[in-house]
Amino acid sequence: MSSAHTPFTGVWPAMLTPLTESLAIDEPKFAAHARALLAAGCKGVTPFGTTGEGPSFSLDERRSAVDALVAGGVAAERILVSTSCAALPETVALTRHAMAIGAHGCLMLPPFFLKGVSDQGIVDAYRWVIDTVADTRLRLYLYHIPQVAGVALSPGVIGRLKELYPQTIVGIKDSSCQREHSLALADAFIDRAMVYVGNEPDLQTLGARGSTGAISGLANMTPRLVQRLVTRFAEPGAAHDQQRVLALLDILGGYGLIPALKGIMASLQNDRGWLRVRPPLVALSDAEHERLSAQIHAFDIDPAGD
Amino acid sequence: MSSAHTPFTGVWPAMLTPLTESLAIDEPKFAAHARALLAAGCKGVTPFGTTGEGPSFSLDERRSAVDALVAGGVAAERILVSTSCAALPETVALTRHAMAIGAHGCLMLPPFFLKGVSDQGIVDAYRWVIDTVADTRLRLYLYHIPQVAGVALSPGVIGRLKELYPQTIVGIKDSSCQREHSLALADAFIDRAMVYVGNEPDLQTLGARGSTGAISGLANMTPRLVQRLVTRFAEPGAAHDQQRVLALLDILGGYGLIPALKGIMASLQNDRGWLRVRPPLVALSDAEHERLSAQIHAFDIDPAGD
Repeated sequence: MSSAHTPFTGVWPAMLTPLTESLAIDEPKFAAHARALLAAGCKGVTPFGTTGEGPSFSLDERRSAVDALVAGGVAAERILVSTSCAALPETVALTRHAMAIGAHGCLMLPPFFLKGVSDQGIVDAYRWVIDTVADTRLRLYLYHIPQVAGVALSPGVIGRLKELYPQTIVGIKDSSCQREHSLALADAFIDRAMVYVGNEPDLQTLGARGSTGAISGLANMTPRLVQRLVTRFAEPGAAHDQQRVLALLDILGGYGLIPALKGIMASLQNDRGWLRVRPPLVALSDAEHERLSAQIHAFDIDPAGD
Repeated sequence: MSSAHTPFTGVWPAMLTPLTESLAIDEPKFAAHARALLAAGCKGVTPFGTTGEGPSFSLDERRSAVDALVAGGVAAERILVSTSCAALPETVALTRHAMAIGAHGCLMLPPFFLKGVSDQGIVDAYRWVIDTVADTRLRLYLYHIPQVAGVALSPGVIGRLKELYPQTIVGIKDSSCQREHSLALADAFIDRAMVYVGNEPDLQTLGARGSTGAISGLANMTPRLVQRLVTRFAEPGAAHDQQRVLALLDILGGYGLIPALKGIMASLQNDRGWLRVRPPLVALSDAEHERLSAQIHAFDIDPAGD
């Protein structure tokens, strides 16, 4: 594997997307959040994944906000852009934009509107994008989150794409939240395409299996904690870190995930603007936010350690 | 209800989208297909629904193809544009375009990427579009096809939207293909918002219940047959028409629905260009198309009667 195609290592948070009062992307706050995550030791950031409500934003909004990250001082090679759309020409446009600014690479779902599609159809869709973009610099991370997208990436699809594009396909993000599935993917592919899990409780197990990075939603508020689970999964403190992760997820389980992650940011930064979400999501109610704030206060996130 | 907001009646086929060799929209063929359907007695056409692979096309492609229908001689008021996108600003853009050209109205899914969203979030999403477009001429048809979109429209959502926008919400397209669900919707809403079924075997039952129109995929190749089931559901010939519909669906059941509908068009027009689909769909193989053609030949579609 050439060094130009070395996949990322460490934590690249699945960035939450802060919004203005009119529910547009708050670009200065978006860039400030990215800078803070990098300052906390994250190796990069991943805008517009599922946690970032990516497909809720238009092509223009997504391009503009990625530009704003760069203009705001985030090195382009530290940005892994999720370019997933239902329409392939739009995925192509976002992927070309990511290449043009010099982003690290792209994270890409299969087209997610039609369901029950065949493996052949999904392979054809990725081929469309890769062949149209036709750029040998493209580093593509395949994104598997069937419980949201409604369309899965089978091992057959992944294997076929890796065979067709050995230099382009550098990683797989498995956000199925099924540890056995992630381990099976690692068994099948980790020597050829790095496997990253989106489910933080699986980081320790996958680290031991050879996984060297993560795209994590929890890393928005606990970047150091997640980073340690990725890089020091075998060290004595890992059990404690794992407990912290499970406790945090236990709190989040009482709410809708993305509104609650934003609610934690609102509490930690004492900035209610972070509560905003774009429909079809609904922001935490005042009562929910108050309850969550109390839970997070008791959990006591430590900026230096979490 | 003011006459300006009278919902449509009769059959408005869910148009298949013909493609060029490079899988762009074949705009001249698209317009010719619409003209042929209107000439066959359809009251209008519905581009870019699920049968039309709507969300597989970019904003620009969809706007351009709707313009091409009008430029190709299709009266704008005979066009009901499906403007469904995952990102609300893009649904707004398509809806504004439909209004600008004078289209009859818009058919609109809820945002379909995130799953498990609340009724409140879906209502918020429609409010965003309606309030942003802010045009009293807008006629909106709510689109329920949970087995594809992965997001359902509950009776609570429909009732709330009709209450908020009594002049704008004029109809509901129920493509759940569950007759009991369609009848329950008719019981609840048909006096306030017309209920249309997308499932042709239910047309007779829903016609008897007061439904006066349909957005139908089968109407691409059998417009007269579907039109009779909608308007003459109680006449002596209806049982025979119903048998024809069931037999046609029985043939289609052996294939992927959209590729097979296009395969029938290819056979009827002796034009293999109709076979093309955009990924993630896969076109019928030669063997499948040969088998389907033989079945359709035996079924013997009659241009004057079907």
